[in-house]
Amino acid sequence: MLLKELGEFGLIERIRQATPKGRGVRIGIGDDAAWLDCRNHSLLVTSDLLIEGIHFNLKWTSFYALGYKSLAVNLSDIAAMGGRPDYLILSLGIPVDFKAENVEEFYCGIRALASQSGVALVGGDTSASSRLFVNGCLLGHAPRRPVTRSGGRAGDDLCVTGTLGDSALGLKLLKQKSVRGNNKEHTYLISRHRFPTARLKAGIMLARERLAKAMIDVSDGLLQDLTHLCKASGMGAVIWEDALPLSRAYRTLAGKKGPLYALTGGEDYELLFCLRRRDRGRLEKIKKHLGVPIARIGTCVAAREGIKIINRQGSPLSISITGYDHFRNRH
Amino acid sequence: MLLKELGEFGLIERIRQATPKGRGVRIGIGDDAAWLDCRNHSLLVTSDLLIEGIHFNLKWTSFYALGYKSLAVNLSDIAAMGGRPDYLILSLGIPVDFKAENVEEFYCGIRALASQSGVALVGGDTSASSRLFVNGCLLGHAPRRPVTRSGGRAGDDLCVTGTLGDSALGLKLLKQKSVRGNNKEHTYLISRHRFPTARLKAGIMLARERLAKAMIDVSDGLLQDLTHLCKASGMGAVIWEDALPLSRAYRTLAGKKGPLYALTGGEDYELLFCLRRRDRGRLEKIKKHLGVPIARIGTCVAAREGIKIINRQGSPLSISITGYDHFRNRH
Repeated sequence: MLLKELGEFGLIERIRQATPKGRGVRIGIGDDAAWLDCRNHSLLVTSDLLIEGIHFNLKWTSFYALGYKSLAVNLSDIAAMGGRPDYLILSLGIPVDFKAENVEEFYCGIRALASQSGVALVGGDTSASSRLFVNGCLLGHAPRRPVTRSGGRAGDDLCVTGTLGDSALGLKLLKQKSVRGNNKEHTYLISRHRFPTARLKAGIMLARERLAKAMIDVSDGLLQDLTHLCKASGMGAVIWEDALPLSRAYRTLAGKKGPLYALTGGEDYELLFCLRRRDRGRLEKIKKHLGVPIARIGTCVAAREGIKIINRQGSPLSISITGYDHFRNRH
Repeated sequence: MLLKELGEFGLIERIRQATPKGRGVRIGIGDDAAWLDCRNHSLLVTSDLLIEGIHFNLKWTSFYALGYKSLAVNLSDIAAMGGRPDYLILSLGIPVDFKAENVEEFYCGIRALASQSGVALVGGDTSASSRLFVNGCLLGHAPRRPVTRSGGRAGDDLCVTGTLGDSALGLKLLKQKSVRGNNKEHTYLISRHRFPTARLKAGIMLARERLAKAMIDVSDGLLQDLTHLCKASGMGAVIWEDALPLSRAYRTLAGKKGPLYALTGGEDYELLFCLRRRDRGRLEKIKKHLGVPIARIGTCVAAREGIKIINRQGSPLSISITGYDHFRNRH
């Protein structure tokens, strides 16, 4: 069987099944980050690849933004477990005809976000490569109880931080030649694509207050990541289309596509989590400390009901496309 | 300046200088592994990239051997600090037209060595890519005093584990079409190239007994890695050509090239270390517990004397080539 038939998640599942869990491994393959026992220390580790032509295009991103993003995507995985980030190990494959200045600009982007988020760059590897790629591996420390993907149950609320779809719409604008840089909405959406914000503070508080029963970061598109959450928790979900949090810029520019980018776009790096209904009041009380708005976008149901999106009229929205699969190369 | 002018080690030095050390970082960029404080735990982290067409060629390596090697090269870095390996995070870029079975064969190779060395595979990332590449990030725990590259001084002995040059000569044989698989020497050298042995036990004992004052693993060729050791320790070195440990297969097949592969070949994954002269006796006593022979190959001298290789007649050997630089793409 070829990889393009098996798909990214099929491959990961095969690897997971064949891999023994190992001593000290509290959570291994299959969540946002691994949770490890190191003697008295409880460690989180996550790793993310960004490859030229797959995850980014140097036509639409600067080296600075690429550096910034290669840390941000890993911060987001640590946030989704409720952890705090500590150390970054960075491997770079670089074409030999690149300028050293470009590589330095890339590291400037990393350092800017690293110093903001209290992360130290401690090592890695570099090599010549036909295409540029970056692999970031981020270590963090775990909260007393890291939030996995598997704690959700039918009856829970589904909540999400921030707004959805901005990044995907920003990317679409970048691909169109007609982008005017001084348009306020354009600038906002493109910036959301280039400089995503990992929801570290929200992740830490949602874990510490035990408000998030299950959590995942939205990187491959809401529906794709919701599917992972539902599968791990053994549940289904109903999403209310009109409850999706959309920015003013998104509403202005999405046009006929409506909530499409918000549902399937990817690269939002917002946190999607399950909340006990009886904790709604507690969530309200700490909302102003989270540093980001929270929207209730649906409810968890039994697994047999699958994943449904209900529109304003209460009728199901037909969405045949889910998120991004790197091997199938399609939405 | 282009990267091919700056070179791999020039780039690493620029990155190192521009990177603040950060809280909890005992050793950052520039040694075999980073040494980190995680609350009460003392952690080692290392990362190594293997890229198709640069580090390996699928004509000459099986997926199983590639998996094995992608862990082995990281084990070797942990060994060079005197640490014990614990957790592997593995990122893979794979062409979409690869067979899933190939990827499984690759993971079989990893699992074989992981279970031998007590390592658990805990996570990573996968993505489509035009060329196959692997990034392994290995976490281990540090001994009380990890062995850095910087503890050597003029007057110390220079010692190395095992034999040198086997892997490079094995690779040369693989590239020649005339290789006969049933030749015992060929088989030995090719196996040293495909399945390198990280000297974990030796590394742990040399650190615990405080016999290694400074240590590095020989991955880019003896002269290249000796240069790193000398630079970090602020010293020079004299290598005795006739003291280089060469296997019987190497002596049989190296022919006119003599010690060339042993000096510059790369991928030996042996440990090169500095020993106080007065510790020679103590080293003799524990030699049989190290699991590998040790050879005394030279002596540390003042930095101003540089690095010299002395042949049987006592006259300096002229070697203009050192080790491998990934950006300059030459020996």
